[in-house]
Amino acid sequence: MSRMGERLILLAMPSIHAGAWRYPGADPGFQASFEQMAWFARTLEQGCFDGLFLPDTLAARAAPIETLVRGHSIVTLDPLTLLPALAAVTQHIGLIGTASTTYNEPYMLARRLASLDVISGGRAGWNLVTSSNPNEAANFGAEQHMEHGARYRRAREFCTVMDGLWESWDQDAFCRDADSGLYFDAEKMHVLDHHGPHFSVRGPLNVERPVQSRPVVVQAGASEAGRQIAAETAEVIFTYQTDKESAQQFYAEMQCRARAAGRQQALKIIPAVFVVWGETLAQAQEKRRRLDLLVDDASSLATLSIALGHDISHYDPHGPLPDIPESNASKSGRERVIRLARSEDLSIIALARRICGYQGLEMVGTAEMIADQMQLWLECGAADGFNIMFSHLPGGATEFVAQVVPELQQRGLLRLQYEGNTFRDNLGLRTPGPGYSRG
Amino acid sequence: MSRMGERLILLAMPSIHAGAWRYPGADPGFQASFEQMAWFARTLEQGCFDGLFLPDTLAARAAPIETLVRGHSIVTLDPLTLLPALAAVTQHIGLIGTASTTYNEPYMLARRLASLDVISGGRAGWNLVTSSNPNEAANFGAEQHMEHGARYRRAREFCTVMDGLWESWDQDAFCRDADSGLYFDAEKMHVLDHHGPHFSVRGPLNVERPVQSRPVVVQAGASEAGRQIAAETAEVIFTYQTDKESAQQFYAEMQCRARAAGRQQALKIIPAVFVVWGETLAQAQEKRRRLDLLVDDASSLATLSIALGHDISHYDPHGPLPDIPESNASKSGRERVIRLARSEDLSIIALARRICGYQGLEMVGTAEMIADQMQLWLECGAADGFNIMFSHLPGGATEFVAQVVPELQQRGLLRLQYEGNTFRDNLGLRTPGPGYSRG
Ligand SMILES: Cc1cc2nc3c(=O)[nH]c(=O)nc-3n(C[C@H](O)[C@H](O)[C@H](O)COP(=O)(O)O)c2cc1C
Ligand SMILES: Cc1cc2nc3c(=O)[nH]c(=O)nc-3n(C[C@H](O)[C@H](O)[C@H](O)COP(=O)(O)O)c2cc1C
Repeated sequence: MSRMGERLILLAMPSIHAGAWRYPGADPGFQASFEQMAWFARTLEQGCFDGLFLPDTLAARAAPIETLVRGHSIVTLDPLTLLPALAAVTQHIGLIGTASTTYNEPYMLARRLASLDVISGGRAGWNLVTSSNPNEAANFGAEQHMEHGARYRRAREFCTVMDGLWESWDQDAFCRDADSGLYFDAEKMHVLDHHGPHFSVRGPLNVERPVQSRPVVVQAGASEAGRQIAAETAEVIFTYQTDKESAQQFYAEMQCRARAAGRQQALKIIPAVFVVWGETLAQAQEKRRRLDLLVDDASSLATLSIALGHDISHYDPHGPLPDIPESNASKSGRERVIRLARSEDLSIIALARRICGYQGLEMVGTAEMIADQMQLWLECGAADGFNIMFSHLPGGATEFVAQVVPELQQRGLLRLQYEGNTFRDNLGLRTPGPGYSRG
Repeated sequence: MSRMGERLILLAMPSIHAGAWRYPGADPGFQASFEQMAWFARTLEQGCFDGLFLPDTLAARAAPIETLVRGHSIVTLDPLTLLPALAAVTQHIGLIGTASTTYNEPYMLARRLASLDVISGGRAGWNLVTSSNPNEAANFGAEQHMEHGARYRRAREFCTVMDGLWESWDQDAFCRDADSGLYFDAEKMHVLDHHGPHFSVRGPLNVERPVQSRPVVVQAGASEAGRQIAAETAEVIFTYQTDKESAQQFYAEMQCRARAAGRQQALKIIPAVFVVWGETLAQAQEKRRRLDLLVDDASSLATLSIALGHDISHYDPHGPLPDIPESNASKSGRERVIRLARSEDLSIIALARRICGYQGLEMVGTAEMIADQMQLWLECGAADGFNIMFSHLPGGATEFVAQVVPELQQRGLLRLQYEGNTFRDNLGLRTPGPGYSRG
């Protein structure tokens, strides 16, 4: 499949490399600071990015305290509280917040996202997750997450309710006619009256129809159940991919699934990519090495335990990875890690360093090299764009916008200015027609 | 009790008079518009108000459709989504969001409010309600609210959990020392590990300590149980009062209750007041009359049904109010309405018009007259300030800031500029010391 002439979708999220906060020039409190995050959103907007993506978790991550104290992401800001504030200081960029279907109520979340969409003039996005951090359960009265399949069944019904609530009002429902005293047209209000196995929700939503009709729905689960719900409900898929060939396969499979589920629009597939820019390849590689050296071993081992859903602290770190039992954590993540260990014959600590530093897709090099790789992935049908993690913040974002963005623009891979009025427009996604949720 | 020389606390909220949206010059979509609400917050800030107060309900109000279509508040914006956006466009004003303890989870709400406090630089407030709109239950899988007493028991434990979560981190917990790799000091993290009848919440919160240590807690329930929880947990009490004498009584009673509950600081008592300004008294009264004429009878009757927790649509509107059975709705509200009917011998429709137009405390007149009344209530110990509803928006707020604010400032009843760094400072409330939640 060749797709010359298409444009890349660019999202960005805060740095997740475990050493990033210690990098020279980095602000270690970046993610927890509104001022920095406002700077970040504005800088991405200057760089014509489509969206800012905020991951989320509803607990401190599961790790021993010695490890926790060395991690930089234990405190952040609630994404759906931060995004409205960012909406007020930006004009074009899409604002995607992660929110769990396991620990939210659909009425509450539909309201928050519809409100964000109105406040931002049509720039809201929702990254639907079913939660994987096992510590979250304990903050909501449970010993552990409900079982993986049950989480996804709840998530599926959650989506149905969200769509129904977002369609509580037709676009032109509110006449607000002071003369007659009629505020809205009763025919244009739709009471959902949903009764299902997980939720009973009457409606209507007490927020107007979102500007985009439906905030952009992003999905990030990678298991069989995760892919299926993405095919049925999402418009953008955020994914971890490591090599181009499996990404192409994933891409094709997801489009196929979506068609089979009766979806009429291609899904946008957006892998995460760790970008380390340098004036020369050597300089970029040196940066990358420096980052990995800033991660400590205890943290790496703890991260590995989480990725496996299994405590590996009792094994010899220099020995091979033993057989790891199935767990209730992220299935796809676990398998990926085990595959990596087996295929490269890594010791536990070597595996841990790879996982913790950053072990997914990376693009390390000059602006031309980074643009080449992005273009290749786009043109060969491996991705529609990328969700970028910078080497460190603020520096990594500044460099990217100054160096890589012009290169992408010159190649016609990135807009010179925003063309659409909404996030959906900029992504090239259709606005669902009136009554879409009613089939 | 004389309190010369003290200053008024001024809060404001959107207009609730049922005719306000039809008033000449009013914007009927004011509350649902971010741009208007941003204008409102900035205008109040120009007028040196302490705070903006957003009421909330998690459903359309309970009324027949013929009535609903004539009401102006069926759609608003989620307060805790709107407030962060307003934080980004203001610098001084406090931002109080209403949130229900019956339909939220404390971990979620603690996070949102802590995030708002950080984003706003210490300006977050929480109006704790236990919900009274009976339609809310149906949006959360229940047939009706849990019983009144149970709601308040849950609310009490909810507060304990919120405080514990807000104290997850000491002020100086985050050293973020890039050299040593230590991000925070483990001794300064406090894991709540709460286990109670309604909630099990481990913590820690994954947001830093709020700038104010504790967002300002406002309480608005008026029953015995409501007063008690206010005495034990709140710092500001929002209340409906109709005459000065009962307000004085309420004021004294609440201070007494607070002392009995071991509270060390006086509660700030803030009645709601409907303000209609005019260049002359006659002009103000004419405005008031005009507003009432804009309310239609069906809406008035429906509002009365809600206030009573009892459907009165089957009675003769021109007859007297029959005996009304107890209900699960707001007790204090119901009693107040029945008292009003009996004391003035009102027919159902006359009662309905009073209730629906606006039947609480009002100040109608010139700037001097309004200032006189406010000063009187302050000096005689009936109130510490007011939560103002303007006749209509935007006009009513513009007039108040231009006309009444200078009058209050001249009398030394209102600041000339903000003196404190946080909402708490401006209200004259102490910042609770480290470990306050741990007793
Ligand atoms: C690329 C990617 C990003 C994710 N981001 C988050 C996140 O920010 N917060 C979260 O709770 N879960 C996140 N997840 C977890 C998933 O959404 C999902 O809940 C979890 O992986 C379990 O489902 P799975 O087995 O289908 O992967 C992410 C997963 C992937 C693959
Ligand atoms: C002045 C005042 C304002 C209130 N504002 C709200 C509100 O915005 N949202 C809400 O759900 N309940 C609101 N309430 C309801 C109460 O907080 C409480 O949940 C309800 O009145 C039942 O408790 P009570 O019987 O103690 O009054 C308000 C009550 C009062 C007295």
